[in-house]
Amino acid sequence: MSKRLVVALSGGIGGAKLALGLSRILPSDELLVIANTGDDFEHLGLCISPDIDTLIYTLAGINNPVTGWGRRDETWSFMESIGALGGEDWFKLGDRDLALHVERTRRLRMGQTLSEVTSDICRRLGIGARIVPMSEDLVRTRVRSDEGWIDFQDYFVRQQCRPVVHELVFDGAPLARPQADIVAALRSGDVRAVIICPSNPFISIEPILAIPGMRDAIRASGVPVVAVSPIIGGKAVKGPTAKMMRELGLEVSAAGVAARYGDLLDGYVVDHADADGVGKIGAQVTLASTLMTTLHDRETLARATLEAADALVSLR
Amino acid sequence: MSKRLVVALSGGIGGAKLALGLSRILPSDELLVIANTGDDFEHLGLCISPDIDTLIYTLAGINNPVTGWGRRDETWSFMESIGALGGEDWFKLGDRDLALHVERTRRLRMGQTLSEVTSDICRRLGIGARIVPMSEDLVRTRVRSDEGWIDFQDYFVRQQCRPVVHELVFDGAPLARPQADIVAALRSGDVRAVIICPSNPFISIEPILAIPGMRDAIRASGVPVVAVSPIIGGKAVKGPTAKMMRELGLEVSAAGVAARYGDLLDGYVVDHADADGVGKIGAQVTLASTLMTTLHDRETLARATLEAADALVSLR
Repeated sequence: MSKRLVVALSGGIGGAKLALGLSRILPSDELLVIANTGDDFEHLGLCISPDIDTLIYTLAGINNPVTGWGRRDETWSFMESIGALGGEDWFKLGDRDLALHVERTRRLRMGQTLSEVTSDICRRLGIGARIVPMSEDLVRTRVRSDEGWIDFQDYFVRQQCRPVVHELVFDGAPLARPQADIVAALRSGDVRAVIICPSNPFISIEPILAIPGMRDAIRASGVPVVAVSPIIGGKAVKGPTAKMMRELGLEVSAAGVAARYGDLLDGYVVDHADADGVGKIGAQVTLASTLMTTLHDRETLARATLEAADALVSLR
Repeated sequence: MSKRLVVALSGGIGGAKLALGLSRILPSDELLVIANTGDDFEHLGLCISPDIDTLIYTLAGINNPVTGWGRRDETWSFMESIGALGGEDWFKLGDRDLALHVERTRRLRMGQTLSEVTSDICRRLGIGARIVPMSEDLVRTRVRSDEGWIDFQDYFVRQQCRPVVHELVFDGAPLARPQADIVAALRSGDVRAVIICPSNPFISIEPILAIPGMRDAIRASGVPVVAVSPIIGGKAVKGPTAKMMRELGLEVSAAGVAARYGDLLDGYVVDHADADGVGKIGAQVTLASTLMTTLHDRETLARATLEAADALVSLR
């Protein structure tokens, strides 16, 4: 019997698009998505997990396709009201979105783990794939910028990524443990491939890989690790990936992203537009159309990525 | 110089109407409203103070005149969404209303007192009068019914007052202390009158009076205490007052309510429709139109109530 489980590492928007594609071409019990929680924070007394939220909304088909975050058919009465009461209003929480934060916060305060809450909410929203936080332990991405140390959401949302980034650290990561189901899955012998989704490497994927044991567990599973480049034609599709690469002194290219993952990568799916620059990286390169505009694009890229992974196995 | 401060005891809807009337005919620094907090509860992890909320919304002019609770121009996206996530949806929280609960909960968890939070929110919403919780200490109204002991909101909202009431207790009241500003005001020598608003005596006024020292502080102030009857024509205007009186074996009448307040009352404002039954109560009766439909009605009743109190002083 062939190995079945696909393990995907994902942040928010771009990663969630590929995760959706994977969820649509795989049976529901054959996909486990490891979600970055380095962006998580407490705001207005509520526990917010932006990447888990985007994954949930995307896989449940209730995401907002315009913003890339939050829910569709959203209303904003809460936000309109909170400012007048002295509450902070720089982080936009829609009225429907708020239900998830309130319910999650309530359950976490009752003692449920983030995994338990996420799993139950996925089930209630009809999501078959598993979405698992990278760790139950607190990891918080912080940014050393030209304005000093800043909390991630302060940098990312309040300051709209304007400060120049010198360094990113993942507070708590050195003492965090990978979530147990992730470790068990990687050890099960049933993993078909590990997919690194086209998320921002610095703020979405590296926090996951920064957890002690995570990289080793992936390596030790012995399965092909295939990343999908978040860079298309030398530019980021959305978000601050390219700006960050420049500020960190890195080459803004698909090859530059691959270099961050180093020897973890066996395969790398790169857009046709970036074919020229990726000859030298130490992974098997697959050219594909990586811009995911339609649902069909998401499925097609997911299929190409899995085929690239499966081809690596037969090469061995 | 004549005494200036009017101290009003109030629950939600009916009480808030008279409080609004008082706030419109008095300078803003001459009204202090003592709010019942026996109905307060934690729901979905949020700290909710229904009577304070109704008072705030009413005095800020943003109350919902149709329901009698919550805010006008409200939307319900949060409620539509919370059920699908496994959250309880029997207590209706509008999206705008939610902003108050989220912000209050955040501040209470930061260590602010309920008085501080209430006072700051009143200021931000332009409310000049002071709205003060009866106590900083937790007091929780519980209902002994034909279905056993029930938490107040369970009885009041979830079960729509259907169970037969045998007894009401105010958990925590024996150890609670009156809020400090209330005691200071009553001792200031500057109180013109204490007004008991036309709220439900059992669930809105008696929790306030159940706090040790509250009744004594009112008595010791030596100022006229005037209640406004919540019964009109032998019926309650809204809510379960009449049903409760029947179930508790009391006469459903303006006189029956006055009997609950006993010798605390110096004056009693009663609707013309109830003139016949109030001859025997031990307080000076004033007949008035007590149904508050329009804003003008609220102001007129407030004025009549203050005149009744002032008349008691000149009688002495």
